[in-house]
Amino acid sequence: MEKERETLQAWKERVEQELDRVVAFWMEHSHDQEHGGFFTCLGRDGRVYDDLKYVWLQGRQVWMYCHLYRKFERFRRPELLDSAKAGGEFLLRYARVAPPEKKCAFVLTRDGRPVKVQRTIFSECFYTMAMNELWRVTGEARYQDEAVEMMDQIVRWVREDPSGPGRPQLPGALASEPMAVPMMLLNLVEQLGESDKELAGNYVELGDWCAQRILWHVQRDGQAVLENVSEGGEELSGCLGRHQNPGHALEAGWFLLRHAIRKGDPELRAHVVDKFLLLPFRSGWDPDHGGLFYFQDADGLCPTQLEWAMKLWWPHSEAMIAFLMGYSDSGDPTLLRLFYQVAEYTFHQVTASSWSTFLYELSKGVEEKAGSHSSPGRPGPGFPGL
Amino acid sequence: MEKERETLQAWKERVEQELDRVVAFWMEHSHDQEHGGFFTCLGRDGRVYDDLKYVWLQGRQVWMYCHLYRKFERFRRPELLDSAKAGGEFLLRYARVAPPEKKCAFVLTRDGRPVKVQRTIFSECFYTMAMNELWRVTGEARYQDEAVEMMDQIVRWVREDPSGPGRPQLPGALASEPMAVPMMLLNLVEQLGESDKELAGNYVELGDWCAQRILWHVQRDGQAVLENVSEGGEELSGCLGRHQNPGHALEAGWFLLRHAIRKGDPELRAHVVDKFLLLPFRSGWDPDHGGLFYFQDADGLCPTQLEWAMKLWWPHSEAMIAFLMGYSDSGDPTLLRLFYQVAEYTFHQVTASSWSTFLYELSKGVEEKAGSHSSPGRPGPGFPGL
Repeated sequence: MEKERETLQAWKERVEQELDRVVAFWMEHSHDQEHGGFFTCLGRDGRVYDDLKYVWLQGRQVWMYCHLYRKFERFRRPELLDSAKAGGEFLLRYARVAPPEKKCAFVLTRDGRPVKVQRTIFSECFYTMAMNELWRVTGEARYQDEAVEMMDQIVRWVREDPSGPGRPQLPGALASEPMAVPMMLLNLVEQLGESDKELAGNYVELGDWCAQRILWHVQRDGQAVLENVSEGGEELSGCLGRHQNPGHALEAGWFLLRHAIRKGDPELRAHVVDKFLLLPFRSGWDPDHGGLFYFQDADGLCPTQLEWAMKLWWPHSEAMIAFLMGYSDSGDPTLLRLFYQVAEYTFHQVTASSWSTFLYELSKGVEEKAGSHSSPGRPGPGFPGL
Repeated sequence: MEKERETLQAWKERVEQELDRVVAFWMEHSHDQEHGGFFTCLGRDGRVYDDLKYVWLQGRQVWMYCHLYRKFERFRRPELLDSAKAGGEFLLRYARVAPPEKKCAFVLTRDGRPVKVQRTIFSECFYTMAMNELWRVTGEARYQDEAVEMMDQIVRWVREDPSGPGRPQLPGALASEPMAVPMMLLNLVEQLGESDKELAGNYVELGDWCAQRILWHVQRDGQAVLENVSEGGEELSGCLGRHQNPGHALEAGWFLLRHAIRKGDPELRAHVVDKFLLLPFRSGWDPDHGGLFYFQDADGLCPTQLEWAMKLWWPHSEAMIAFLMGYSDSGDPTLLRLFYQVAEYTFHQVTASSWSTFLYELSKGVEEKAGSHSSPGRPGPGFPGL
């Protein structure tokens, strides 16, 4: 027990040190002093190799700076807050494609002109997270108003008007339910509801609905988590139906686990550990070379995505967060061993070149473990695989 | 000389044999007897692992069957023609999203309902090729009418109304000119103009315009072929501007070479060999493990596409076709040596699993060398990287 405590403490210190390095890297290289917002296409030497501004990443960096500022004494530094505010103002001014409409761009030019629009809800989700966290550190109501209005719109799009984000409804397109949608929405429920009884109360039914929808993705008599299911919660045909994303399943796992812990629902907790932590790890871990596959086919066929066999940094972050959270909740040594397995693989594989981006993400998990329960994950492939 | 002739003859026979195997495989496994058209998501055992119908591939298979039927005695088989016609009827009935509008879907359900629409010209290009080749083997004017009408529309979209395919014009989107567009259009000019004096005459100016536009992509004092340039033919900023696709450059190379040969333009021929054959090969060939990279960054930075370092089958097909065509035209032994280098690498690397798809594509180059000048290449990533 004492030994275990020491090992965990050593990991905590290691990640803390790297977090400091990472924050210093982003502080030094990513701030656009001229236009506000952040450069996010950085080489290992900090060189800006593209000045496009991805709204997901802008939102995430604002969130991250605010969250560090709010939760950790050593990050309560005015330059973090100022940069977060400059990023927030950039988003307020430019993220929406045609204000006052609330559809956000996917990527903007350095000076804020829209380059691409994704017909999904995710830019809006990261925008919401940024605004809510800005409100938490500054107390300025305009940020929170923006967050809540955007959240209302996202919920409308998801539950009432799926044509909202602009995707054409083609007669042959399967009405598929991607797990990312209720997963991300559950994360927003946690974000907005943190220490906010009124909003948390408003979102009780929504949170349960999200959890239920995520659980639909456990298919084949509990033997597989499938990324897409039908509107009725059934398996879809073809590659789309068989598509699996182990990192997503693990990420959904820790969102669900946080939800179940908050609800005090032991049955759900056990189910989540079994189906969203252990199952995706068992089927998604490469038995030959270690690491989590990016994509899999539930029948073991070759996924059509060329990058399916790659080992990306983010699924490993999600796995470490999930296993640590599971262990912290249950004390089950199996989950701790899996955390060590993923962490050792990951810290061994991650090279200097991807270290910064990697830790930036990992740091979220560490904070999570440090006592906060408002850390978001990330749906879909992150930079540089955007 | 005799030795060289023998070596080439041996390659020819090898590819002929494989072509027979490949055609037999597609004949056996890909025909949808119920709805017409072709299954194109086939496992190595011929199993249909998805029944979606990609319009590019439907068009290409119709073209291929007709072309084999028309050019090779041993493929003049009624079942090839019947299947091509069934594929053509499937396209005529279903490819257009909302007929009589001529925008084609990117992918259809098995029974022909549109699933996705790409806001580009490429589905329409493959549709045109299929219809033109169907007309050549059947003599039925309705196929040719369809081909010419679609071609007119494509040319209008490219030269007069870029908003035609439905892409929104966002204020921050760089007006970039992808090489794929004039490249594909030049290929259609060759396809429609084959042994057709009137159409060939109509397209003289268009063919020269396409060639000119492709040549714009030679940048940096002739030291790099860039995939995207500005509307004025200048290098663009950022990752988009530095993006390179060696397989595309080589493919554009053999389209241009065919154009230059037809025009009898020795200066252009030399330029094309230098800039679109030798240069992309020199910079795109992996010096450590062999093979052509999928993507590169002209400054040597890491491309943001996860799959950039993968070696796909199709750039190697394009390279073999290009070097063989260059050698056949000039007799330059350097080009023959490069053909051997690519062919040896490719035939050594291609495993049984990808053999069929690979040879299906490669066969086009062989026919090309067998005397015809109307074989299309393929722009963009093919299946399974769709």
